[in-house]
Amino acid sequence: MTNTVPAGTTKVSIEFRPHDKVTRVPPGMTIFNAANWIGLPIDSTCGAKGTCGKCKVRILRGQNGATAADRRIFSEEEIADGWRLSCRSEANSDVVCHVPRLMGNPKAALMGFDRHVILNANVYKIPLTLTPPSLEDQRSDFSRIRDALEPEGYAIEASLNLLRQLPGVLRRSNWQVTAVIVGHELVSVEEGDTSSRSFGLAFDIGTTTVVGMLIDLNSGAPVAVQSALNGQAVQGADVISRISYTMLNEGGLAELNEVILRTLNGLIARLLEEGQVAAHEVYEVVTAGNATMQHLFLGVDPEPIGLEPFIPAVEDMVQASAHEIGLNIHPQAQVHCLPYLGAYVGADLVAGLLATGLAQNDGVRLLVDVGTNGEIILGSAARTVATAAPAGPAFEGAQIQDGMRASEGAIEAVTITRDGVELQVIGDVPPIGLCGSGLLDAVAQLRLSGLLLPSGRFVKAEDATQLVAPDLARRIITGDEGRRSFVLAWPEEAGGDRPIVLTQRDVRELQFAKGSIAGGIDVVMQELGVGADALVEIYLAGSFGSYINPQSARIIGLVPPVPVERIKAVGNAAGEGAKIALLSFRERMVARSLPQIVEYHELSGRGDFNDSFLAVLQFPELETLGLEQSVEASPA
Amino acid sequence: MTNTVPAGTTKVSIEFRPHDKVTRVPPGMTIFNAANWIGLPIDSTCGAKGTCGKCKVRILRGQNGATAADRRIFSEEEIADGWRLSCRSEANSDVVCHVPRLMGNPKAALMGFDRHVILNANVYKIPLTLTPPSLEDQRSDFSRIRDALEPEGYAIEASLNLLRQLPGVLRRSNWQVTAVIVGHELVSVEEGDTSSRSFGLAFDIGTTTVVGMLIDLNSGAPVAVQSALNGQAVQGADVISRISYTMLNEGGLAELNEVILRTLNGLIARLLEEGQVAAHEVYEVVTAGNATMQHLFLGVDPEPIGLEPFIPAVEDMVQASAHEIGLNIHPQAQVHCLPYLGAYVGADLVAGLLATGLAQNDGVRLLVDVGTNGEIILGSAARTVATAAPAGPAFEGAQIQDGMRASEGAIEAVTITRDGVELQVIGDVPPIGLCGSGLLDAVAQLRLSGLLLPSGRFVKAEDATQLVAPDLARRIITGDEGRRSFVLAWPEEAGGDRPIVLTQRDVRELQFAKGSIAGGIDVVMQELGVGADALVEIYLAGSFGSYINPQSARIIGLVPPVPVERIKAVGNAAGEGAKIALLSFRERMVARSLPQIVEYHELSGRGDFNDSFLAVLQFPELETLGLEQSVEASPA
Repeated sequence: MTNTVPAGTTKVSIEFRPHDKVTRVPPGMTIFNAANWIGLPIDSTCGAKGTCGKCKVRILRGQNGATAADRRIFSEEEIADGWRLSCRSEANSDVVCHVPRLMGNPKAALMGFDRHVILNANVYKIPLTLTPPSLEDQRSDFSRIRDALEPEGYAIEASLNLLRQLPGVLRRSNWQVTAVIVGHELVSVEEGDTSSRSFGLAFDIGTTTVVGMLIDLNSGAPVAVQSALNGQAVQGADVISRISYTMLNEGGLAELNEVILRTLNGLIARLLEEGQVAAHEVYEVVTAGNATMQHLFLGVDPEPIGLEPFIPAVEDMVQASAHEIGLNIHPQAQVHCLPYLGAYVGADLVAGLLATGLAQNDGVRLLVDVGTNGEIILGSAARTVATAAPAGPAFEGAQIQDGMRASEGAIEAVTITRDGVELQVIGDVPPIGLCGSGLLDAVAQLRLSGLLLPSGRFVKAEDATQLVAPDLARRIITGDEGRRSFVLAWPEEAGGDRPIVLTQRDVRELQFAKGSIAGGIDVVMQELGVGADALVEIYLAGSFGSYINPQSARIIGLVPPVPVERIKAVGNAAGEGAKIALLSFRERMVARSLPQIVEYHELSGRGDFNDSFLAVLQFPELETLGLEQSVEASPA
Repeated sequence: MTNTVPAGTTKVSIEFRPHDKVTRVPPGMTIFNAANWIGLPIDSTCGAKGTCGKCKVRILRGQNGATAADRRIFSEEEIADGWRLSCRSEANSDVVCHVPRLMGNPKAALMGFDRHVILNANVYKIPLTLTPPSLEDQRSDFSRIRDALEPEGYAIEASLNLLRQLPGVLRRSNWQVTAVIVGHELVSVEEGDTSSRSFGLAFDIGTTTVVGMLIDLNSGAPVAVQSALNGQAVQGADVISRISYTMLNEGGLAELNEVILRTLNGLIARLLEEGQVAAHEVYEVVTAGNATMQHLFLGVDPEPIGLEPFIPAVEDMVQASAHEIGLNIHPQAQVHCLPYLGAYVGADLVAGLLATGLAQNDGVRLLVDVGTNGEIILGSAARTVATAAPAGPAFEGAQIQDGMRASEGAIEAVTITRDGVELQVIGDVPPIGLCGSGLLDAVAQLRLSGLLLPSGRFVKAEDATQLVAPDLARRIITGDEGRRSFVLAWPEEAGGDRPIVLTQRDVRELQFAKGSIAGGIDVVMQELGVGADALVEIYLAGSFGSYINPQSARIIGLVPPVPVERIKAVGNAAGEGAKIALLSFRERMVARSLPQIVEYHELSGRGDFNDSFLAVLQFPELETLGLEQSVEASPA
């Protein structure tokens, strides 16, 4: 009898009438949050604290005992009739309930990728006109504020910092103040009516780039957007080298923590300047980023993330004050770091799930963040699975003979025409090398031209002349020990003294990288028992994923063979998701429960992953993609 | 329907079977806490967090819906049968319940004044042997700890600080750790099994003296006790001068905050040294002190306490971390400041209530802390009322011609014999002046001798010779304008060149001081409708109260005329109460609810107080006290 039921073992169904919506959620989720999960906005003004009484539902079927909050709000008869506060009522078995009241005119906005998000920030600014104390009314300053907020449905706690401000502010303002409540906490009391000024920050803390958005929490509008390079680039280009830095350098963790805080505080200064907002007017922050970036941001040792078996210190949503963390905004502002699904499926992907609604919608979708690690999430509201596949640095242009990062002079797109090559180069300069998206394009175009075989081998130079025009065929060159390459740019085209080439070895590197990701996708598709036909959409996310040509991804077999129009680049999904979690407390609750709901599968040491990997190393035959050898490249 | 019922308007009764105990408590109190209130130790190992399942009771009569915690612990049938977790079950109407299980062999100790206190500290140290992570078990470090603690009945939260320690500690200790839980918070994870080392601090922060006790939370035994002068004495001797200091000096509040922290940290260093305890082994602190001392300790502006209408910033129990406050112990140790009943009935009195059990026992008792302010609490478990009466500095020897503080050379006790005066002097030195307890004795003895009339006037010198022996009568001297005094020590007895005297004006000062306190007592006795006969005991508390001769207090009418054996000095009741709240979470919950339960009556501007004051300015007639003019002093 004293054993607790482990959460998440099985799901319960909740039916909402008269809306005829049903959802299946892990037991223990509140009816209110279950409704948010499917976008049904039950009314509430107290942030699901059981105090405003607006989220009432009537339980028609299923067990749901009355809570202490119910007893405060409802009469005996109403409780006997099944009335409950949905924000306090946890569903532990199947429930059918009647919802009398949705939000009247909920403020909503289209955010992320066609997501209709209800705006309800977790920051409440309540103007109060207090009765001054007297010998007949000697309540303390804090009790006076608390008693004034109680009828409005707010049950608050106060920090020491607030108590330190309180006597002065109340008396200077002549008892006309604005209470600032974040969650359950009274974080500030301001002089006069300041309720029109309420701001929050959403950050995507990328390994390379950090994007910050300053948002007006009243309107939901972005006030300013800024980005900056992550200052930690000096200590290493990728996650693993950052972790190594903390391991190899005395004080390395503290140093990387300081560096990212400097980057963020620099961004904050620019955002506040651009938006004409004061630091103390920013009360809440949501961050997304991979597990390593969030650990370094919090000053928590990431070392175990870098070593098998890859363990983060925490996977839940972490909450701390801006003061504790070291952000230059209101010291009691709450900072929420979105949770992770695994050491290598980080909060950026959780944010991506919010931005795409993948785990909340019907229809199976695939979200792939292509990078050094391929992060893969597949599923729908019914079931969602995730994994991470180690792709190596090929997509970043490393380990590629003429590879480079996506900066000035990088070939970012390639088209092979009847008798030549068209290159798209970053910046108005001659090409210097090949970045990830260019690499993908080059290989895909070579597959289309017939110059590259499904096995990944170049055709022999003598065979090339049979296949394509002489000017193109000449670009297949043979080096030492018969190793073939393809010349993307001759020295005169590259404006230098040597050509830019794609080597046989480069193609192999790409094969391994795409094979790992495709193998991971294969594993989760098998796990879910779905084929490519079932995929409604494929989202390519992450700073690299957004630049991939969907057709190229398809041709090389990086993603399953769906019609190309179903493959979408979703840009900065992490930033969008962080913004959604900032502006919608309901969506933030969804994000918080994602780690319990999404099943994470570790690939390391899994036999079926190795099988899948080997099976997808080859490039797909063109006909399986409904393509034929490209006309442009057919022999003259 | 959306209105909440204001707490404390009326009480509900809770009957506990088979113990046949009944208590009346404010609605909303949990059944568990109501049982603690009357000392019935319902079993619990999780600190009333709804997780261990041991505090179950069966509701036989009264409304009590099942909570989410009940649903986790009990089956449907058990819930239908009325089983509930008493720690979650709030009583909002009269309840009859059956308690199947009290604590088996609860560790208890006699503390305070004949109080049988159940020892259950709020600090839990749980040794854990964790399964190391693997590719098959990639839970985060925090989840691993949380999951290991859940079957033990602990539901925890973690701070950023803890997350920062966690990866290192777990791996250095090879997954053998001790979790340190304070309340709901996992404050520390220590290498190996450290469960035998757990300490707490209880402080009585007096205006003059600070007393600290270092307590072994496992055994309940004090490990070390130290006291020190409050370093703020330099900035003013009493509460009002300290408040003035903050008002008149730029940075005065910060300065006084630093000074008291220096005093406390000095005490802590000595306590740790004496007890051979490391700073990080101290996890919890309870403080008692008047409202001004606690405000200055927390760095909260006390100015509004000093000005009508006398408003503290907060009256509830304040909780903050040692780090936030600035105490040199475990940075995440929780510091709990006991609550107040009013601006001038502070946490020292709340601690006094714990130490005496006044508000929890049957039988009406009176607790009086005599000082610059008389703090007065009267009542029993049925009803308790409190007030504060401004007594002025007479009891501290100020405004008295030969008055002084209770230090070396002060006359602290006086006996008038047949033909002379016997003085008890602090230290082995000739008398220099008169401190409060000596003043009280002198006046009381003069009343007994007949040399001082009920009106407070000395008899004329010529009448004195009729009443007492000549050597004694000579001590009544007449100065300018016929003002009479009583010589306590002739110059040769005082070892100086002038006598130590008690003037007519001194007697008047004492009359006003005692009249104010006696008037306050009169008001609360009228409020409760009880006379002196009903008083089971009178407790004299506070640094001054403990030194008063109970008989003298009775003779001058400072306290109601009860048999002298019912008047007890209770020494450092504040320190004892703080210790009780540290060692017994149950008693701390009682302390927390005292401000809601004890009715505070403000005397300022109250007509009936002025009437009472005037009525008790005179000294009582000896016969009303069952006394007659003292034999020793009767004429030869």
